[in-house]
Amino acid sequence: MLLVLDRSDSLPLYRQLSQQLKGLIENGTLAPGTKLPTVRRLAEDHGLTRLTVQSAFAELQDQGWIQSTVGRGTFVSAQSSGPPPSRLEVPGSLAELLQATDRPARFQLAQAAPSEEFYPRQEWKACLQAALNQDGSLNYGTIQGDENLRSQISRILLDRGLQVPPEQILITHGAQQGMDITVRALSKPNQPVLLETPCYPGALELLHTLSRPCLEVPVEQMVKAVEEQCRRHRPTLLYTVPTFQNPTGLLASPAQRAALLALAERYDFYILEDDVWGFYNYTPSLPPPLKAEDRHGRVIYVSSFSKTLMPALRLGFVVASEELLQSLSQKKHASDLVCSLLLQRGLAEYLKRGNFGPHLSRIVPIYKQRRDAFHQALLEHAPECSFHLPPGGLSHWLKLPAGVDESALFSEACHQGLVCARGAAFYPMPRAQGYLRLSFGGHKPAELEKAAALLGQLLRAARQRPRLRGNPLV
Amino acid sequence: MLLVLDRSDSLPLYRQLSQQLKGLIENGTLAPGTKLPTVRRLAEDHGLTRLTVQSAFAELQDQGWIQSTVGRGTFVSAQSSGPPPSRLEVPGSLAELLQATDRPARFQLAQAAPSEEFYPRQEWKACLQAALNQDGSLNYGTIQGDENLRSQISRILLDRGLQVPPEQILITHGAQQGMDITVRALSKPNQPVLLETPCYPGALELLHTLSRPCLEVPVEQMVKAVEEQCRRHRPTLLYTVPTFQNPTGLLASPAQRAALLALAERYDFYILEDDVWGFYNYTPSLPPPLKAEDRHGRVIYVSSFSKTLMPALRLGFVVASEELLQSLSQKKHASDLVCSLLLQRGLAEYLKRGNFGPHLSRIVPIYKQRRDAFHQALLEHAPECSFHLPPGGLSHWLKLPAGVDESALFSEACHQGLVCARGAAFYPMPRAQGYLRLSFGGHKPAELEKAAALLGQLLRAARQRPRLRGNPLV
Repeated sequence: MLLVLDRSDSLPLYRQLSQQLKGLIENGTLAPGTKLPTVRRLAEDHGLTRLTVQSAFAELQDQGWIQSTVGRGTFVSAQSSGPPPSRLEVPGSLAELLQATDRPARFQLAQAAPSEEFYPRQEWKACLQAALNQDGSLNYGTIQGDENLRSQISRILLDRGLQVPPEQILITHGAQQGMDITVRALSKPNQPVLLETPCYPGALELLHTLSRPCLEVPVEQMVKAVEEQCRRHRPTLLYTVPTFQNPTGLLASPAQRAALLALAERYDFYILEDDVWGFYNYTPSLPPPLKAEDRHGRVIYVSSFSKTLMPALRLGFVVASEELLQSLSQKKHASDLVCSLLLQRGLAEYLKRGNFGPHLSRIVPIYKQRRDAFHQALLEHAPECSFHLPPGGLSHWLKLPAGVDESALFSEACHQGLVCARGAAFYPMPRAQGYLRLSFGGHKPAELEKAAALLGQLLRAARQRPRLRGNPLV
Repeated sequence: MLLVLDRSDSLPLYRQLSQQLKGLIENGTLAPGTKLPTVRRLAEDHGLTRLTVQSAFAELQDQGWIQSTVGRGTFVSAQSSGPPPSRLEVPGSLAELLQATDRPARFQLAQAAPSEEFYPRQEWKACLQAALNQDGSLNYGTIQGDENLRSQISRILLDRGLQVPPEQILITHGAQQGMDITVRALSKPNQPVLLETPCYPGALELLHTLSRPCLEVPVEQMVKAVEEQCRRHRPTLLYTVPTFQNPTGLLASPAQRAALLALAERYDFYILEDDVWGFYNYTPSLPPPLKAEDRHGRVIYVSSFSKTLMPALRLGFVVASEELLQSLSQKKHASDLVCSLLLQRGLAEYLKRGNFGPHLSRIVPIYKQRRDAFHQALLEHAPECSFHLPPGGLSHWLKLPAGVDESALFSEACHQGLVCARGAAFYPMPRAQGYLRLSFGGHKPAELEKAAALLGQLLRAARQRPRLRGNPLV
């Protein structure tokens, strides 16, 4: 078998191997049913460790390209009939975003995060001091999390229209950990998960790492798409951001919410509701979270203080029925024991002092102003794009005009100092689809106006360039 | 099928179901090859959700009791030939320990943790203030962790005889998360992992949650046992605490360390080296960690500041080759993105100020004194037990005299205000084996003397009581 592996390549060897084998299967060199060499043989022939070959095989098997039978060997899979669940192909979109955020740039619109200038540093200093001055333990604490903190969270959730006792709350390292333990508790490897698309890249990365294929449900026709997928498959879990969806900013209507809950009951699946944006509300009234209408314990609600206070806390929480919370706690505990009691007690103090509501009342109008300014500027400078006024959150989702290549425009924008997120980062099979996400939280209105003007220039230049077919993702 | 499920029982329903099915298989009611009812049927017949039945089936399948074949159904497994890898049976020993620690008691010897009175609260207040005063970001930060913190860790590891560049360090939520991502990156579900026994309960809980069966290697004959297991199985990973093993306190000799590294190379497995106790050294000289002699990138070294500073930080780290670190970082990132940059910067500041060495120089002699006092007191009051002077760490591991029931003594000790850890908590298949772990970190010498005296009384009382056969674990 002809394989070319390059140790100086930044791509790990196992990934190089799996990609080449995939290529050989795709182009027919390795026909369905072909027996592959043993791990040992491949390793010896190519000077690889067995682990490298095993990792490549595991990836190919997870993705359905090959199958192993004990005692017989490993074979190229037969062609599957009908459209299979999407396999997640290129992980690392989230990492890419995170790296983009660290890039010094004139306009930093890559990360949907609040602006550092509004992080409550001073209040935090006082609260952490108080936490360190208290007699209370700085030991591990309980698995479920600090009781005072859970009581405070229960209280602030009332402002989101959600009434839950502290017993149904589990403290986690951000919403991401809440998602991780929920997916692990309510689905198994190779079991498909319903996923709205376009989608928060952290959910994509998580499902990829946990070997969960995904059943895509376009967020704009979610209810219909979920029902169709449920007729063909038996998913146990749906991931969704019903309130100010990331990246589209969409807000599910009360009717859509009710329909999703009914589908969960009819088709026997759970809903992982990600509500990290719920407090970033620019509308006069807001439907409560799905969890508030959850009569059958089917909703696992996750949220975090990364967006409302600051990412450096890494504190979030899960709300679920006490029965589910038990198995979620076990996953959490086996993963990393507990969350820092120091930070938990600092946060409990912060919330107890009543700082949270006033902080939101101070910052949300600022971001609303930024949203409005950016929206006006986009209408003026990029009228050829389609987009709507996001009713909450920190991002605009722009559909580029036909003929403008997403990848090329994204590269050029980054090059010119306008760092943003490309549409491909929000899909399980990354492919340029003609979108950009522009997050406006980090800049003042005047700067956002300049950013929109620069985007307009780039768009006009792009439309004058001939479009290259098959331009690779950058 | 006759099943009795009790919703008021604290045991989750799925666990009740799986235990009863296991019982029916063990007593022959369900013979090998018997087809089980479908999930749907079992759920309907017993008024359970399908998830409950699925969870029970998943557990039984993970443990090898039943097998599923697509399109045919679920069957009781045939008797396996030869000794299979141990399946982890009762999780939650770690949770039990954690709960025991929260129990108010005269003598709190359950948790192998330092004493709160020596936590560096004042220094921490100053360092966190400095971190909040600095201009630096309180955003997410990079996946691998704060660069200054990694540099500082690289520096303090020199004192452990380990020279590694910051590029080979990944910041994690304690050593536990380092273990979690390592097991997930280097083994797959149902793939057995080599595990020293008796063993840190957090490793047991982790392997259980990740569905990794374990190949036990008794820590006292580790090298021989590892080789025997490798001849019969093909493990990819060994978990070990070579320096001040938990719970035994054993210190692997340089020859044993070299032998383990050679075996890893010969049988192609990785070594997960847990070094959380390395700095608690009471001996004049100490062999360096396995990682220091790791010429082939086979060792993944994990440690934490929970024992040396305070558990409430939840900061630890992994040291691994840059190639491995890439896949470990991906697992970490998908799990919970990053660690709190606030705590990371506080810790970097703490280490940079040179606080760590003096802190250790202050506390280690105190614990050495406690160890010596407790050892003397045990020699005096519990001479019928076997134990050795632990060369490091915070625990004595007592073998009870023949005729004394571990479970009964443990219960009685807790009842009398001497809270400790029972031997069963340190084995994958919890069974009373006649051991107690007594952690002396939290009490002054005079109190430890009283604790030992109480233990002596309890031992004498236990030997006068007739021993009940089959006394259940408490």
